Amino acid sequence: MAADHPRFPPKDPDFEERGRSGFTRQPLMATLGAEIVLVEPGYVEIAMPFAPHILQQHGFVHAGAISAIVDTACGFAAMTLMPRGAGVLTTEFKINLMSPGKGERFIAAGRVVRPGNKLMVTLGECFAETGGTRKLIAMMTATMMVMDTPGIVD
Amino acid sequence: MAADHPRFPPKDPDFEERGRSGFTRQPLMATLGAEIVLVEPGYVEIAMPFAPHILQQHGFVHAGAISAIVDTACGFAAMTLMPRGAGVLTTEFKINLMSPGKGERFIAAGRVVRPGNKLMVTLGECFAETGGTRKLIAMMTATMMVMDTPGIVD
Amino acid sequence: MAADHPRFPPKDPDFEERGRSGFTRQPLMATLGAEIVLVEPGYVEIAMPFAPHILQQHGFVHAGAISAIVDTACGFAAMTLMPRGAGVLTTEFKINLMSPGKGERFIAAGRVVRPGNKLMVTLGECFAETGGTRKLIAMMTATMMVMDTPGIVD
Amino acid sequence: MAADHPRFPPKDPDFEERGRSGFTRQPLMATLGAEIVLVEPGYVEIAMPFAPHILQQHGFVHAGAISAIVDTACGFAAMTLMPRGAGVLTTEFKINLMSPGKGERFIAAGRVVRPGNKLMVTLGECFAETGGTRKLIAMMTATMMVMDTPGIVD
Repeated sequence: MAADHPRFPPKDPDFEERGRSGFTRQPLMATLGAEIVLVEPGYVEIAMPFAPHILQQHGFVHAGAISAIVDTACGFAAMTLMPRGAGVLTTEFKINLMSPGKGERFIAAGRVVRPGNKLMVTLGECFAETGGTRKLIAMMTATMMVMDTPGIVD
Repeated sequence: MAADHPRFPPKDPDFEERGRSGFTRQPLMATLGAEIVLVEPGYVEIAMPFAPHILQQHGFVHAGAISAIVDTACGFAAMTLMPRGAGVLTTEFKINLMSPGKGERFIAAGRVVRPGNKLMVTLGECFAETGGTRKLIAMMTATMMVMDTPGIVD
Repeated sequence: MAADHPRFPPKDPDFEERGRSGFTRQPLMATLGAEIVLVEPGYVEIAMPFAPHILQQHGFVHAGAISAIVDTACGFAAMTLMPRGAGVLTTEFKINLMSPGKGERFIAAGRVVRPGNKLMVTLGECFAETGGTRKLIAMMTATMMVMDTPGIVD
Repeated sequence: MAADHPRFPPKDPDFEERGRSGFTRQPLMATLGAEIVLVEPGYVEIAMPFAPHILQQHGFVHAGAISAIVDTACGFAAMTLMPRGAGVLTTEFKINLMSPGKGERFIAAGRVVRPGNKLMVTLGECFAETGGTRKLIAMMTATMMVMDTPGIVD
């Protein structure tokens, strides 16, 4: 899905450092075992290994854990396009869960589709990775509100 | 919002026991510190105390943690109306995050709005509780697919 | 669902007149045969009779026509809480279609759940009315952006 | 967005004829002035010219009309992958409206992202076309339920 989306230029040259450091200050991501693996302008990837403490009762990763990393990838994707000192806040997201959370690790990818001045619209995906193969298991659309102050995600 | 929704009868008299025991077998709920506090036919409440390990970087509860408990409340609300041996699976949800995750504890309430044979439509809410007062901070609509087998949520 | 939602006071005493006149200036509503039937602070109802030109190929009202009146009810519900000179704009909505569009007429009800300064979150419902009985057939959540100028919906 | 999505094979070689004839039997599409312009396996485009009877009061195309054509494009995209005699039914959709409905005509594109046996997940987009240039103005995700009988969309 990445290929033919337009890319948007960052307003802050330090967008990558800001994204990575903001991520490390989110305790829930550490609780889930997630890490940020790619930070580009308008595009972020987060990885989360399969682990017993994030499952539901049938041995799959809980939809709540999947949603959390995709929302976070979308939020930081929006952050990369913010000027210094501004932040974003998720106002809503919708996720379609297409296959169970089964695999070695999960890659959440978030990209900015519409970088508005007040609202940024993002598209997120989650892939289950097994033996080097990726399968799309969830798709999200999310709206981020732009905050003049660092806000919720900085 | 609860008052004038129709209530639906359970098909399995042991619905409450099934709901409570299913919940305890979801490791993510324990990871988040959540517990199930009310199980009625078509209606479930989950409580999660404010805690450092579920926050984002500004000291609010992460939207991912809020979403996880509301989705789970909606899933178990649907479960209470399933016959024995059947389960449900979240196929999609959408959440509007209306206020930051700030408070002493968070109550996620899920209710069944449309108990179909194939799909169940649910409405979820999250309240932040502080000093005994509840404030609505998030609203969700979610679709659960009915599984002939115990499925994802049992 | 109406009963236990809080009601919010209007900022413009002429909210009803503004809502009704704004509605009549929406040609799509006339095209669909819809009319506004109730305007209260934070709550609006729109009615649309069953008619051949709004159907899909199996004789039910098209989901697109249902969505259009529920979105409009939500938009005008938000409008009733705006100060004079301000307007709202739908930024996103999600609708769950629970039963086919079958009935004598359709009542779309929109209510404001969270009247924010920048964004207003609304909950919409659509009822199919037959022989005086109402059946809930669709549920929507929608976000309206507040516009300093009259904006899209005025 | 089209480029790197997998394509899925049709189960009925007459998928295109079925899609086109099903579309012509949807009176709402004629009411809106919409026509189906491209039918490929898992992918459908619908075009709707700007016209006075589909506007809201500020001279833009009403969000309800935009939603109707994107939902329909997603529904027929799913239809192209159905075996003969089966149909689909929209159970939910969510749309992000990113820019006003302003342009000469509007192209709604729907594609199947996950062709399940019970549920099909689709991604829709709406482009405003002006002087040969296309601008993305809306994005939708929609779930279609598979019907053994021709169902709502056939």
